Amino acid sequence: MTTGCGEASRPAFDEATAILAGDALLTLAFQVLASTEARRPERALEAVRILAAAAGPSGMVQGQMLDMHSEGRTLTPEDLQHLHALKTGAMIEAALAAGAIVAGGSPPQVDAIREYGRAIGLAFQVVDDILNVEGDPAVMGKAAGTDRVRRKNSYPTLWGLEKSREFAHNLTQAAIESLSDFGVEAEALRTIARYVIERNK
Amino acid sequence: MTTGCGEASRPAFDEATAILAGDALLTLAFQVLASTEARRPERALEAVRILAAAAGPSGMVQGQMLDMHSEGRTLTPEDLQHLHALKTGAMIEAALAAGAIVAGGSPPQVDAIREYGRAIGLAFQVVDDILNVEGDPAVMGKAAGTDRVRRKNSYPTLWGLEKSREFAHNLTQAAIESLSDFGVEAEALRTIARYVIERNK
Repeated sequence: MTTGCGEASRPAFDEATAILAGDALLTLAFQVLASTEARRPERALEAVRILAAAAGPSGMVQGQMLDMHSEGRTLTPEDLQHLHALKTGAMIEAALAAGAIVAGGSPPQVDAIREYGRAIGLAFQVVDDILNVEGDPAVMGKAAGTDRVRRKNSYPTLWGLEKSREFAHNLTQAAIESLSDFGVEAEALRTIARYVIERNK
Repeated sequence: MTTGCGEASRPAFDEATAILAGDALLTLAFQVLASTEARRPERALEAVRILAAAAGPSGMVQGQMLDMHSEGRTLTPEDLQHLHALKTGAMIEAALAAGAIVAGGSPPQVDAIREYGRAIGLAFQVVDDILNVEGDPAVMGKAAGTDRVRRKNSYPTLWGLEKSREFAHNLTQAAIESLSDFGVEAEALRTIARYVIERNK
């Protein structure tokens, strides 16, 4: 975190404090989850298990390790998808699955929501990579072209823009189709899926 | 972590990996807790809440922040106890309380076990400080006298050795007395309380 008001970008807090803030927020997430839904403790407990599996060594932490180890190496599209599924996808999927479970969804409903989460999580990442190539820095509020300069593994680099756009489009379609057993109550999720691919920032 | 085999102490893993290992283990603790005791989910959920409260911003993380901010300042004995209660005591107390709850302890039994944990946690820290003054580095496997050199806040510095020993002794007595409603099944805990004060490393 930076103060954002000096000429040079000076950190507002030191690294030890930043690490502790991360530990605090990670722990607080479990505290919040475990403090809800007192009438159905088995659902809250399932939500805790889902969050832990998505955040920990079988999820986000593993994805971050893979990302660190992939620096300077060219990945296959399959490896890149696996990395994203762990690093960012697992948490998006977990947030959706935990919500579906706490709300009392049936196992097929929870599976459908998981499938939706998996698809939009990956679509979000593919669109992120596309915007890094052709997005407008003024609209995005961040620089474009950085992936190429840093030689970061990205879908446009591996596949080109056209195939990347098609992939993101197919993922969005799959996300919306996974909601086919839901009615109007899932309209907000469909809107989010469309936003993921239409966004320009 | 160091390799421990070179002349210079070279790290075996980089800092980013160390931070991720911490995040992984913190998350894994919640996963393990949430995966036990399927027959009584409300107990496992209570254990999750207890661990989160002890580890997060209301426990260990807060204690570590207080410790960082107390460097170079002389604390009062009350502030030092508060720091230790959060930084190390909360986790010892949580481990005991969570065990008592998962095992089906009554509220007064859980309170007694908590009280025991609070007392031995603090006693352990006081004895640590005493050993740093008068312990045998060969037995402890670590250097003595480091607190004084670093001007670290410690009980012997604030109170002198005699009063620190008396305080540790009283805490151990209080820990054992808090178990008075338990029979022979708590003998292991009484042995641990005695070990905390008799240990020389």
